[in-house]
Amino acid sequence: MKLGKTGNNKFLKQFNETSLLELIRLNKQISKADLAQLTGLSPTACGVIVSNLLEKGYIREAGIGISKGGRRPNLYELNPKSYYSIGVDIDVDYIRFILMDITGNVEYRDMISSRFDQSVSESIAFIEKKVRQIIERNAIREDRLLGVGVSVPGMVDNVTHEVIFAPNLGWERVDLESMMSGMGNFPIYVDNEAICSAISENWIGCCTEQRDFVCINMKSGIGSSIFADGNLYRGCSGSAGEIGHIMVDHNGPKCACGNYGCLETLVSSRSMVEKAQKLVRQGLIADFSDELDINSINSIDFIIDAVKAGNESARVILVEAAGYLGLAVANLINTINPSRIVLGKELVKFSEDILEHMRNIALAKALKYPASRVEILASELGEDSSALGAAIVPLKKLFGHRL
Amino acid sequence: MKLGKTGNNKFLKQFNETSLLELIRLNKQISKADLAQLTGLSPTACGVIVSNLLEKGYIREAGIGISKGGRRPNLYELNPKSYYSIGVDIDVDYIRFILMDITGNVEYRDMISSRFDQSVSESIAFIEKKVRQIIERNAIREDRLLGVGVSVPGMVDNVTHEVIFAPNLGWERVDLESMMSGMGNFPIYVDNEAICSAISENWIGCCTEQRDFVCINMKSGIGSSIFADGNLYRGCSGSAGEIGHIMVDHNGPKCACGNYGCLETLVSSRSMVEKAQKLVRQGLIADFSDELDINSINSIDFIIDAVKAGNESARVILVEAAGYLGLAVANLINTINPSRIVLGKELVKFSEDILEHMRNIALAKALKYPASRVEILASELGEDSSALGAAIVPLKKLFGHRL
Repeated sequence: MKLGKTGNNKFLKQFNETSLLELIRLNKQISKADLAQLTGLSPTACGVIVSNLLEKGYIREAGIGISKGGRRPNLYELNPKSYYSIGVDIDVDYIRFILMDITGNVEYRDMISSRFDQSVSESIAFIEKKVRQIIERNAIREDRLLGVGVSVPGMVDNVTHEVIFAPNLGWERVDLESMMSGMGNFPIYVDNEAICSAISENWIGCCTEQRDFVCINMKSGIGSSIFADGNLYRGCSGSAGEIGHIMVDHNGPKCACGNYGCLETLVSSRSMVEKAQKLVRQGLIADFSDELDINSINSIDFIIDAVKAGNESARVILVEAAGYLGLAVANLINTINPSRIVLGKELVKFSEDILEHMRNIALAKALKYPASRVEILASELGEDSSALGAAIVPLKKLFGHRL
Repeated sequence: MKLGKTGNNKFLKQFNETSLLELIRLNKQISKADLAQLTGLSPTACGVIVSNLLEKGYIREAGIGISKGGRRPNLYELNPKSYYSIGVDIDVDYIRFILMDITGNVEYRDMISSRFDQSVSESIAFIEKKVRQIIERNAIREDRLLGVGVSVPGMVDNVTHEVIFAPNLGWERVDLESMMSGMGNFPIYVDNEAICSAISENWIGCCTEQRDFVCINMKSGIGSSIFADGNLYRGCSGSAGEIGHIMVDHNGPKCACGNYGCLETLVSSRSMVEKAQKLVRQGLIADFSDELDINSINSIDFIIDAVKAGNESARVILVEAAGYLGLAVANLINTINPSRIVLGKELVKFSEDILEHMRNIALAKALKYPASRVEILASELGEDSSALGAAIVPLKKLFGHRL
């Protein structure tokens, strides 16, 4: 890394400070001499920046390192519990909240059921109240809050950051960043939920070493996000990765978008729940209706539980969905040629044999060569991945990363 | 652009020289003073580099510019016919050759029919002979040949540059770069044909201003390439964009890859020709067989000509193919969110009404928002796009571009 000389230039100073902070993060613990060597800055210039970072509280002393000739140097590291960020993940039936410190440590997490027949402003009021509570109960100084990241299940314009369309929330053209800006003297960052998951997989999950990967999230709908050549790929207007409406079955059911056989009509928690309800209602599957009351089938968990209890009809629902998902995954393997595909949100609830079925179809339908280079795995961050990613967005900003 | 100080560092010197050359290319004509201002190098350092570039012959003086105070400056520009590159595009039934000078000007082009029942080494011998002819007949000094770019209809590994698999040529694991390295004292660059087309569209075609675009080429097979955020996107092992084997019809014909309803079985010159031959052979389409002898149906041109002559059955073949292509294009719009999709190779032969049919299906099947941001158009570079792109590869190297 070659940095500019420090001087009176405010932007250059900020750039050098950000770069040193990122080097401290990446190296965990590091001396001024090593920072000088890595950056090409003079030891004096590094000393000034380190003093600034100490004074602002971002970093702290971390003991004494090994001598490389001369006296043993002081080491520096990120200062835990100094600065914070908040991540909010909005979905149809819940909102998740994460409080994270500058080191990526989760200080607090919560999930609250929500009713999204509320208006946008009611929803925002609800979120704002909860964010204020988190700030107060954790005694966080507002100048130490780096920002609030908000994850939404919809398309977000990559220039204006407006939520273009979040069909499952019934939102269209919602400028969430502006609407939430009154919350406090800290920035708000709105992004798509699959993109937030990719951010967390790349920062603290299973893709910290991957340059080309895809995250597929299933919940009320299904969407994906693409990391290409080490960076988020957003497309020309921010909607890259929207695989929910690729056609996987000509003869499939009609979709809300007007077409037939969209992936989302066959692989989403909503579509699977509807399928289960329908079969029970029609009395077509006796063993299924015996076990479950139709009113209690309102979440994929009931299908998952029924499968665990040995119900074959419930299993067929998952197997069919896994098959269609396999087709979509094959398309992504051919088109994107990723080294990893990470399955997130409610897909982590699928049992290993169902996932294996999906993998087999995906790898059989994809071209041999890219299929031999890809790993398909369930996220270890589970259903929190988007909330975590939303909380990481302000950290990425602090450490000078592209978003 | 901030460049390093010139000095004894060979790499830094090369870097600065490359950067100045690129600035001269981009600005068409430019003075030393403006180069110094754009790069942050001293006027003296710029003067030294410009002298080197003049001496090597890359640039020439281009008259006198406008005074910005002081005397009117000398301008410099790329020196046409100084350095050259050759592009070779290998396909099943022809090989195309392009000789291009440093300014991107095409000095010579040729297309030769070929029979690819030949062995790889026979094919290479044939290409080498032709390349030597081009060099000799155009009196090109070997030290002025920047390299030979070779475009192949198959997957090319992005690290080893080996041709992994080119099914329509019957090639598997062919290290073309090594095999052709004996041709002369200049580098050989092997790349995928759709990627070569994207390179030419971005350098001299309709995508010089686009950061996110997709090129779709149809010939013996069908493939695509992706420009993401201003750079070629190759995926983790070089096969990104291989859309020929995405499934577009469950009930479609069996593909050589073992699956059913791959795009290539429905949209490729080969599949359309086979369809025409079959219909004629079965006597199912009288008006079609009246006009055309079955033996003469060996290229898509015959179908195109029949449509022009008003043959409805031939038209149905194109309309069906255009419909399936529309589905694949819709997938790409949703997944990649490009600002442009450029249709190349034999797709440029489709008449505007057939293309309009395809566009209508693609835009109806895609999500509204990304569909509203994309333009779908036929390449103006026509069937030469890959040969041109192959010739541009050595130029990109010279001007310091990522490949």
